[in-house]
Amino acid sequence: MSQFSHFDDAGASRMVNVGAKPATRRVARASGIVRMLPTTLAAICQGPGAKGDVREVARLAGIMAAKRTSDLIPLCHPLALDSVEIQLTPAGDDGLWIESQVEITAKTGVEMEALTAVTVAALTVYDMCKSMDRGMVIERVQLEAKSGGASGEFARPAAGEVGA
Amino acid sequence: MSQFSHFDDAGASRMVNVGAKPATRRVARASGIVRMLPTTLAAICQGPGAKGDVREVARLAGIMAAKRTSDLIPLCHPLALDSVEIQLTPAGDDGLWIESQVEITAKTGVEMEALTAVTVAALTVYDMCKSMDRGMVIERVQLEAKSGGASGEFARPAAGEVGA
Amino acid sequence: MSQFSHFDDAGASRMVNVGAKPATRRVARASGIVRMLPTTLAAICQGPGAKGDVREVARLAGIMAAKRTSDLIPLCHPLALDSVEIQLTPAGDDGLWIESQVEITAKTGVEMEALTAVTVAALTVYDMCKSMDRGMVIERVQLEAKSGGASGEFARPAAGEVGA
Amino acid sequence: MSQFSHFDDAGASRMVNVGAKPATRRVARASGIVRMLPTTLAAICQGPGAKGDVREVARLAGIMAAKRTSDLIPLCHPLALDSVEIQLTPAGDDGLWIESQVEITAKTGVEMEALTAVTVAALTVYDMCKSMDRGMVIERVQLEAKSGGASGEFARPAAGEVGA
Amino acid sequence: MSQFSHFDDAGASRMVNVGAKPATRRVARASGIVRMLPTTLAAICQGPGAKGDVREVARLAGIMAAKRTSDLIPLCHPLALDSVEIQLTPAGDDGLWIESQVEITAKTGVEMEALTAVTVAALTVYDMCKSMDRGMVIERVQLEAKSGGASGEFARPAAGEVGA
Amino acid sequence: MSQFSHFDDAGASRMVNVGAKPATRRVARASGIVRMLPTTLAAICQGPGAKGDVREVARLAGIMAAKRTSDLIPLCHPLALDSVEIQLTPAGDDGLWIESQVEITAKTGVEMEALTAVTVAALTVYDMCKSMDRGMVIERVQLEAKSGGASGEFARPAAGEVGA
Repeated sequence: MSQFSHFDDAGASRMVNVGAKPATRRVARASGIVRMLPTTLAAICQGPGAKGDVREVARLAGIMAAKRTSDLIPLCHPLALDSVEIQLTPAGDDGLWIESQVEITAKTGVEMEALTAVTVAALTVYDMCKSMDRGMVIERVQLEAKSGGASGEFARPAAGEVGA
Repeated sequence: MSQFSHFDDAGASRMVNVGAKPATRRVARASGIVRMLPTTLAAICQGPGAKGDVREVARLAGIMAAKRTSDLIPLCHPLALDSVEIQLTPAGDDGLWIESQVEITAKTGVEMEALTAVTVAALTVYDMCKSMDRGMVIERVQLEAKSGGASGEFARPAAGEVGA
Repeated sequence: MSQFSHFDDAGASRMVNVGAKPATRRVARASGIVRMLPTTLAAICQGPGAKGDVREVARLAGIMAAKRTSDLIPLCHPLALDSVEIQLTPAGDDGLWIESQVEITAKTGVEMEALTAVTVAALTVYDMCKSMDRGMVIERVQLEAKSGGASGEFARPAAGEVGA
Repeated sequence: MSQFSHFDDAGASRMVNVGAKPATRRVARASGIVRMLPTTLAAICQGPGAKGDVREVARLAGIMAAKRTSDLIPLCHPLALDSVEIQLTPAGDDGLWIESQVEITAKTGVEMEALTAVTVAALTVYDMCKSMDRGMVIERVQLEAKSGGASGEFARPAAGEVGA
Repeated sequence: MSQFSHFDDAGASRMVNVGAKPATRRVARASGIVRMLPTTLAAICQGPGAKGDVREVARLAGIMAAKRTSDLIPLCHPLALDSVEIQLTPAGDDGLWIESQVEITAKTGVEMEALTAVTVAALTVYDMCKSMDRGMVIERVQLEAKSGGASGEFARPAAGEVGA
Repeated sequence: MSQFSHFDDAGASRMVNVGAKPATRRVARASGIVRMLPTTLAAICQGPGAKGDVREVARLAGIMAAKRTSDLIPLCHPLALDSVEIQLTPAGDDGLWIESQVEITAKTGVEMEALTAVTVAALTVYDMCKSMDRGMVIERVQLEAKSGGASGEFARPAAGEVGA
């Protein structure tokens, strides 16, 4: 048998059949960091009333992308998400930390939606800032936790402080 | 004036006006790494005739996503790409290195298309392997080089061997 | 607290969490008018057997757009609609009145779907007729009624005859 | 012959053949107004540092929709837009005036893109504010001006002050 | 009354109202054949380790298209599919036989999703092979069976061997 | 070297690089037939003033799908089409013959766009009529002719009368 649930015994890709699974409450959280020049981070994080809010543009892009995850990831199931939230907070003087949380009651989980939200938000930060800092790097995009479903809970072990 | 080309002087987002720019040849290369368990990498990289090709699924997802970059990144221009190529190669015993190259003759560059190709390919690797390795991490997504356009050449300085 | 349900306390946009809401029967009706030259309206409303049916093209565009509302409106939830109907009827000698009705059993309402159906149908009327009447105006796009959900019933007070 | 360029002589819809047209510089401007309660407008237009920026969400939605016009309007040509700008300004104490400008060098015009930008921005304002003011109305969505192409210039005659 | 469920009594198209239907288990199977030169079929069906897997590309395209059926077919309901599987097997020495199976628990069936999966997979086979065999023909795309829903079971009568 | 232009020497899929090709005038024509019960065909082909026009719905679906070909076929280039036309005419007493013609000036051809237009129009005919005739079959979907580009002209040899 294939080790990969997305391949059948002959190695053909397939959308895994979730028809027999019960719909349960599922939550997934993911995160990632965009590393940049301190001057870029300072420009993004100007106080209230600043001219232009990079984080809001990135947040909206991430939310919209989460809704379209099944259009992007070939074998993901289409899902009617209940909730998507994204936060972007400074991490040290050269990092913008992006966290997402996605919720649903469904037969399958929303890990990919949470990860897609983070990566598209990160790409949008890159796009908004690239004219001043083309060397930005997207780092450490990972699932933080998930709950619900037959595979049970997942929580990433702490790995030291973000931005350290 | 706003420091961000995507905001006007009042801080309102806009699609930058490229109407007066000449269409020139533009190439962008990007890369990223998916870190995983060595057993996951071994399962992905089985020899010819293996049952299921994770890398081909990821490659197709990345190519298709590159074509839809302007649907995902709010202020990107829609572009009729001439070429998209994606390679996925092992990096050490626990990394899958993803590289993309995108080409076009247009008034604006294809950095975001190259980065989108890499990230969606990486997300697809995650999706295909997550049932065996939920702790995978997407690392070091970055622009490697670009050419063409008024902002000229960009080449990332070498940073040691990938996978080191 | 923010006055806007789509912003959190820090002013960050979010998709409102409907996870705890029950799925209930919801109906929304919306309407709008396209004002045009009487000759344009006459050309649209030719009798049976006419060469080309502007209203059918607009109706299909509106139905298809209603299905894609969550792709267009950033913070709308993706929804699997049960029904979409659109009617286009003459209002006086210079107006085409567009009404939509959308139904679903879901955790959130379909007001935006009904309004999107009307506006995209109206835009399509404009597109089909613009070569003969570039001055057409889309007027009075509004929610007529909604039922279902915690916010209860809404019915717009009558405002005189349409087309008056 | 059909009076409608989008129908052939038998009344069948078609995408008009622009193959023989030269690519020329084209600009289109459109506008519309969202009528609302004065308290709603006041909540939207809070000063710098306000918690949440409705206008920025609407602006991004309108820009993204302009890029997808040919997905929404059945017989529109797909176009690689050079520029999209959207402004939202108060009109009196109960109106939010939305203006768009779209530019391209192409064989066909961008009137529909400009009108789509306005209407989707208006729908997004409705979505963001509907929990406090379900009676909002989208009014007077119209083409303001266009230039370029065989049909020449169009400029709407002034009609008194907006918001009056 | 219209003979067509997708038209109302006035002949206006509509999305059929399925609001009153119960959600039941539904399965649909469809198939089709791509006729081609024997040398083309031989190139596609090389053994394990071959350079490039046309069938895997077609399979992924078909699965992704099934998920987007309601974007393509104007009056189809949007559906959250539980499962999509596609098989491509040689039929004689000049045919590639494509079969799909789609499953869901919903108020409406998935015949169109199964047929869309087959046709887009077939189109992708054409695209991958057209540089060597432009004369390929897509034949006999048909529903094989469906179950679930008020209209009950459907099974196509056997019609002799495929590829005969 | 791979026999397939869409695979590189290692068998990895890629979007073929058309960057060095000149943009030339390209036209493609495709066709297909939907076989059905004579009563179904009669219902579709009622005279002027009939209640509901199946062919118009199918035509619009085909035109819209042609515009989205690069979203559906993984390795197709995104293209800004100049023209799409689709005709549906009775073939004998049990066939509906669908023909498309697509035109563009571009670096690559529009065969896939013409074939996608035909197949999605055919699927839409199936969808509109399936409640009365589930056994309909889509037959003989093929490229009729193409011109323009390095691979030159293609014209399918006549094969007897359609519908025979």
